[in-house]
Amino acid sequence: MRLLFIGDVVGRAGRAAILQELPKLKAAWALDCVVINGENAAGGFGITEGICTDFLDAGADCITLGNHAFDQREALVFITRQPRLIRPLNYPSGTPGGGANLIETDKGQRVLVVNLLGRIFMDALDDPFAAIERELSACPLGMVCDAAIIDFHAEATSEKQAFAHSVDGRVSLVVGTHTHVPTADHQILPHGTAYLTDAGMTGDYDSVIGMDKAEPMRRFATKLPGSRMEPAGGSATLCGVAVETDAQGLATRIAPVRIGGRLAQAWPDFWESR
Amino acid sequence: MRLLFIGDVVGRAGRAAILQELPKLKAAWALDCVVINGENAAGGFGITEGICTDFLDAGADCITLGNHAFDQREALVFITRQPRLIRPLNYPSGTPGGGANLIETDKGQRVLVVNLLGRIFMDALDDPFAAIERELSACPLGMVCDAAIIDFHAEATSEKQAFAHSVDGRVSLVVGTHTHVPTADHQILPHGTAYLTDAGMTGDYDSVIGMDKAEPMRRFATKLPGSRMEPAGGSATLCGVAVETDAQGLATRIAPVRIGGRLAQAWPDFWESR
Amino acid sequence: MRLLFIGDVVGRAGRAAILQELPKLKAAWALDCVVINGENAAGGFGITEGICTDFLDAGADCITLGNHAFDQREALVFITRQPRLIRPLNYPSGTPGGGANLIETDKGQRVLVVNLLGRIFMDALDDPFAAIERELSACPLGMVCDAAIIDFHAEATSEKQAFAHSVDGRVSLVVGTHTHVPTADHQILPHGTAYLTDAGMTGDYDSVIGMDKAEPMRRFATKLPGSRMEPAGGSATLCGVAVETDAQGLATRIAPVRIGGRLAQAWPDFWESR
Amino acid sequence: MRLLFIGDVVGRAGRAAILQELPKLKAAWALDCVVINGENAAGGFGITEGICTDFLDAGADCITLGNHAFDQREALVFITRQPRLIRPLNYPSGTPGGGANLIETDKGQRVLVVNLLGRIFMDALDDPFAAIERELSACPLGMVCDAAIIDFHAEATSEKQAFAHSVDGRVSLVVGTHTHVPTADHQILPHGTAYLTDAGMTGDYDSVIGMDKAEPMRRFATKLPGSRMEPAGGSATLCGVAVETDAQGLATRIAPVRIGGRLAQAWPDFWESR
Ligand SMILES: [Fe+2]
Ligand SMILES: [Fe+2]
Ligand SMILES: [Fe+2]
Ligand SMILES: [Fe+2]
Ligand SMILES: [Fe+2]
Ligand SMILES: [Fe+2]
Ligand SMILES: [Fe+2]
Ligand SMILES: [Fe+2]
Repeated sequence: MRLLFIGDVVGRAGRAAILQELPKLKAAWALDCVVINGENAAGGFGITEGICTDFLDAGADCITLGNHAFDQREALVFITRQPRLIRPLNYPSGTPGGGANLIETDKGQRVLVVNLLGRIFMDALDDPFAAIERELSACPLGMVCDAAIIDFHAEATSEKQAFAHSVDGRVSLVVGTHTHVPTADHQILPHGTAYLTDAGMTGDYDSVIGMDKAEPMRRFATKLPGSRMEPAGGSATLCGVAVETDAQGLATRIAPVRIGGRLAQAWPDFWESR
Repeated sequence: MRLLFIGDVVGRAGRAAILQELPKLKAAWALDCVVINGENAAGGFGITEGICTDFLDAGADCITLGNHAFDQREALVFITRQPRLIRPLNYPSGTPGGGANLIETDKGQRVLVVNLLGRIFMDALDDPFAAIERELSACPLGMVCDAAIIDFHAEATSEKQAFAHSVDGRVSLVVGTHTHVPTADHQILPHGTAYLTDAGMTGDYDSVIGMDKAEPMRRFATKLPGSRMEPAGGSATLCGVAVETDAQGLATRIAPVRIGGRLAQAWPDFWESR
Repeated sequence: MRLLFIGDVVGRAGRAAILQELPKLKAAWALDCVVINGENAAGGFGITEGICTDFLDAGADCITLGNHAFDQREALVFITRQPRLIRPLNYPSGTPGGGANLIETDKGQRVLVVNLLGRIFMDALDDPFAAIERELSACPLGMVCDAAIIDFHAEATSEKQAFAHSVDGRVSLVVGTHTHVPTADHQILPHGTAYLTDAGMTGDYDSVIGMDKAEPMRRFATKLPGSRMEPAGGSATLCGVAVETDAQGLATRIAPVRIGGRLAQAWPDFWESR
Repeated sequence: MRLLFIGDVVGRAGRAAILQELPKLKAAWALDCVVINGENAAGGFGITEGICTDFLDAGADCITLGNHAFDQREALVFITRQPRLIRPLNYPSGTPGGGANLIETDKGQRVLVVNLLGRIFMDALDDPFAAIERELSACPLGMVCDAAIIDFHAEATSEKQAFAHSVDGRVSLVVGTHTHVPTADHQILPHGTAYLTDAGMTGDYDSVIGMDKAEPMRRFATKLPGSRMEPAGGSATLCGVAVETDAQGLATRIAPVRIGGRLAQAWPDFWESR
């Protein structure tokens, strides 16, 4: 299968990159499954039902979230009727929506998508290492699902790497999100799981993690309360990772994707050229 | 000038990559100045005088440190007689060694090297945003120095980006270290400063941030005390960033460097081929 | 029932206070149940089997722990054969020992003792708010148990207070531990649960949280690695809280206990004089 | 001299306690100097000029602040014309207002008041241990000032105690604030400085650190965004500490003060009775 994961979409600039590029990429690369992290899609904070629908219409099979999942309160409601929107699995029991789902692709493949929050330097939720074991027991790769994609939304590189090794060989892809900076350590781990510490954001990289830089610069320098954070408005780089899997659901190839905006461009050389 | 910065060297595997590759790279690329972050060079924790000397002999002009600066207690002593070893500038007044130095290269160019610790998710030190202002006032780029390299050793991407924008146009390069994962967001900021959120480590990438993965995986899963952390022993990827500067000391080109080991290889295409 | 809870015993000085005072207090006040937090009893870090036995012999009915539970590795073994030693309930599943137990007192009363770790400013464990609900469902106050004592080992006052209100009326006592400083906010909450934000340590209060003050003072000032932390050796104040419960297991009286050492002395005026 | 320090006043209930009790206490105890922490006086967040004036009119000689200093933006302006309002000393250089001031009392005594923020589990500011040294050099106790009061606004008990020992014998009183819970460890340290880890808040103790308990309880349980925090409206306990100093400015007596509301009442027995 051909999988594309796209990192945290930030604000209007990020959304524009998705709507403009994703349909083309899906066709050009014959993608089987596309997952987008949408936790910052609505002005940098959360996601609305309209945005969620736009992303699905543009070709996404599933939207994941993170610590900003419910910044837009309406998400607490519409997530219950939108099974393709996934919030972190390790939120308290009773949280609206689900943290994992078996998504059926257009071609009928079954892809397990899981969203988890790390705990180092983040608000404390339940153990993601234990939570994934329960999920993978219920939905083993190659048996119940054809591919398994985990969006591990976390700050610390140590936690992301330890998590990935703990599921290596049992999922197709572990991709980190949350730092809003793409990492260059894409690799296939020893037992066959594709891994990238962070997908990076889909947003304007002349910014502070996607937000207009003036306000965060002022806060760091003065430590005083200020005005609202607003997404930066320059053109976005669509950032993510492309993975090809085999019949067992393990990864055979991985490549970074960076299209548009300020960053050095990158895309898989193992699929049809763009 | 041609500058090369190499990220946190971890243990024996990392040191071997430096000693084997650096002399060749310095010659092949006609490097004017090489800076290495050495905070994890001694078994993952700190640096010894012997290792420091080895790195300088291999072609480094300067060694920077970080939160592990003094894990090897001998560094508190030998740093006072080794001006090419720089510890974070924002340690308390009275800390042995210096946090910034004007290094003279083999060709007689003067390069300001500064090491700073970020404060988000890290032990609290004095304000790096204020500290750099004092340093740049004393040593303006293009006047007192020909190039200025800042190793901003920090966890949070937001702090690294806000810091870089705050000195954009006044230094040659701001490069982050500490997360041990190379980022793919190398760029020249609007006012001419080269920037990369993290250089990545020079170590074995089949690991948890350079350390043998079994022990950190066990700790994340069980939360119980365990055995010592040891560096992973597989072959290392030398990770860093290459920058070319103009007569004013501002950046004209930037490229990631990843040589050896598991990661996708990368090097500047704007200098002589390797 | 007459309950006494004693806060974190630190090192030799703290242990001496327990062994000297507890037998007298148990007799003088006709105590029905005594619980001691022992996470720092062994040189400030963890507990040994010998110390655990000494505390039980001195009159304790149960020993609770905290984030230092397993600093002495032997505790991972002997906790499995000592049901009166309780480690935090919200450690990962599979951790040796138990986090709650129904203790039978000398007079045959049944006391539920639960130990939980908070999560604000502490290592992330599973949700203590959810964990206590499961425990209280299984062991309702006044039905399965005659009294219920929760040692909530946590840093943040907000988390301790929110937790206490969430179980108010369903347990006899919520007492905080971990900060090593006794608070003066003992009260009976609106629905009948006795509450104290922190019991304080049983240790030398001319110290930094029980440890000899020179080394922590040096670390705060210099931020440099140093020598080992050692418990302070001056005479200890036994710190804790005394509670009387009614037939339903709810609290009717609460008083702080501070005996010996530097702190202002305090004890219940509602029981026989000492 | 007779000193009274009153901890973080929270909202309307806290302000009412100040306005009602302080004038009586000042007269009954013949207080020479009263300092109030006002960082939560305005609806729980910051302070307004009107509230500041009310407190001074009620008998305060000086108002200190904390991490909420500038939650009410108007404080950035009026602090520059109100020298009896002190914000944390270790804010970045250029912050409006001052962090230390030599206050003249009604009887003409000179009292140095300093406000500092701790750094453990708090936003990173500059080193309070270094900052106090500069201040005490400029204003030595018994020479330039008759008494010196430090409000150390911090979370961690270890930092508060290490700080107090580091100035023991050089100031009259180190009193902690910020946790909103009074501690019971009031003592005179070996070299003559009065010390209390936390003064506690002046607010309603049937709450979560002074705020209506429903919303924080909900947030801890659900981890979901909710409605605004509002101060609890029950009657407040005025919490603080009373200290008597000698001719050298060192402490001879210390006692906790808790008047009104739910907490056990306390006041100095060494001054005229109330
Ligand atoms: Fe994000
Ligand atoms: Fe996030
Ligand atoms: Fe490092
Ligand atoms: Fe580091
Ligand atoms: Fe403790
Ligand atoms: Fe503890
Ligand atoms: Fe406060
Ligand atoms: Fe505060």
